[in-house]
Amino acid sequence: MSQARLIEVETAILSKNDALAASNRRVLNALGCLALNLVSSPGSGKTTLLCRTIEALGEAPLAVIEGDQQTSTDAERIRATGARAIQINTGKGCHLDAQMVGQAIDDLRPRPNSFLFIENVGNLVCPAAFDLGEDAKVAVLSVTEGEDKPLKYPDMFTAARLAILNKTDLAPHCDVDLDLCEANLRRVNPRIEVIRLSARTGEGMAAWTGWLRTRLAEKAQ
Amino acid sequence: MSQARLIEVETAILSKNDALAASNRRVLNALGCLALNLVSSPGSGKTTLLCRTIEALGEAPLAVIEGDQQTSTDAERIRATGARAIQINTGKGCHLDAQMVGQAIDDLRPRPNSFLFIENVGNLVCPAAFDLGEDAKVAVLSVTEGEDKPLKYPDMFTAARLAILNKTDLAPHCDVDLDLCEANLRRVNPRIEVIRLSARTGEGMAAWTGWLRTRLAEKAQ
Repeated sequence: MSQARLIEVETAILSKNDALAASNRRVLNALGCLALNLVSSPGSGKTTLLCRTIEALGEAPLAVIEGDQQTSTDAERIRATGARAIQINTGKGCHLDAQMVGQAIDDLRPRPNSFLFIENVGNLVCPAAFDLGEDAKVAVLSVTEGEDKPLKYPDMFTAARLAILNKTDLAPHCDVDLDLCEANLRRVNPRIEVIRLSARTGEGMAAWTGWLRTRLAEKAQ
Repeated sequence: MSQARLIEVETAILSKNDALAASNRRVLNALGCLALNLVSSPGSGKTTLLCRTIEALGEAPLAVIEGDQQTSTDAERIRATGARAIQINTGKGCHLDAQMVGQAIDDLRPRPNSFLFIENVGNLVCPAAFDLGEDAKVAVLSVTEGEDKPLKYPDMFTAARLAILNKTDLAPHCDVDLDLCEANLRRVNPRIEVIRLSARTGEGMAAWTGWLRTRLAEKAQ
């Protein structure tokens, strides 16, 4: 297949996705529902972060869409907190797309003025290209991955509004320079917001839930 | 674009890749060169592992192909050890393919009976589908990623001959169960070999370099 034909195919796939994402966004905006697309490498701690977030948000209405190639482990972990969750298995697929998420939104029926967390497939590359209709992408970066990841995978960190530097409790064991990591994030995306967080110790959780509540209030206005 | 048309496009891309991979394999077999495709999530420690491996292998002839979306940081780290390395930047791309690797092999001109290490883009999904002409895929899994990753990303661990459970020095700080992690690896791939390793403490390095020398000797026969 020629390079030109490949680009044509990719453009067709992305443009179909964008139309479905726009439709998802209309539904979410009509509901005043704040949708966040959590993206990261595998094992950065997204599900644990979500479980702690659900506990910290208390009575706030919310729902979760979980994406993985296989297993429903993550949705089960979320449901154990009492929250509603739907698991999408992508099979061979490397990312969630707007069609999958649209179907899950219709099934979940999010409540007005609620949070919708979408945990994408663990992959720092492909999910950057697929709009799901979310208000913002939140990139979760475990400190164990090293300071250079924003420079090596710039598309993802350029697409994100907020980066969570996660598992800061492991930083003393990893020779990682968190200031350099933040500087690298801002090098690829000067406007990115950064929160340092440890789901284990609770560091940064107040900043994160404060950020969430502010974004939801903005959306409800 | 219809699902049938999408499958047709994917099949065409993979079949073109397979033909180029077969050509790479002929070249590498003719040279008696052992080619290993190192695959993992971003930040699992592949480059550090390679640097320690090059030191441990001493005078053994070897070369390295590095894949990343952006930067030539990894090839520079490899060259600092004295080894030859070529960096491939995939741009928006999420994996190395046989064409990119073929070009790098031609440029590197690997020596007879040498090791060729190919460090793929950090991504637990897409590189599983692309044969590069390697003798084996080696999956590197950092213990910080959690025990469930083999079950969630089974294609990668099914495709791998060897899994390296890396960063074992961090295990005491992570509540990770290494026996469960190994059991999960064998659940998706009963024939997979497993080495527990810490590039920092040196645990497992002798087992890994022994495995490498045995595979090279088999190939030279």
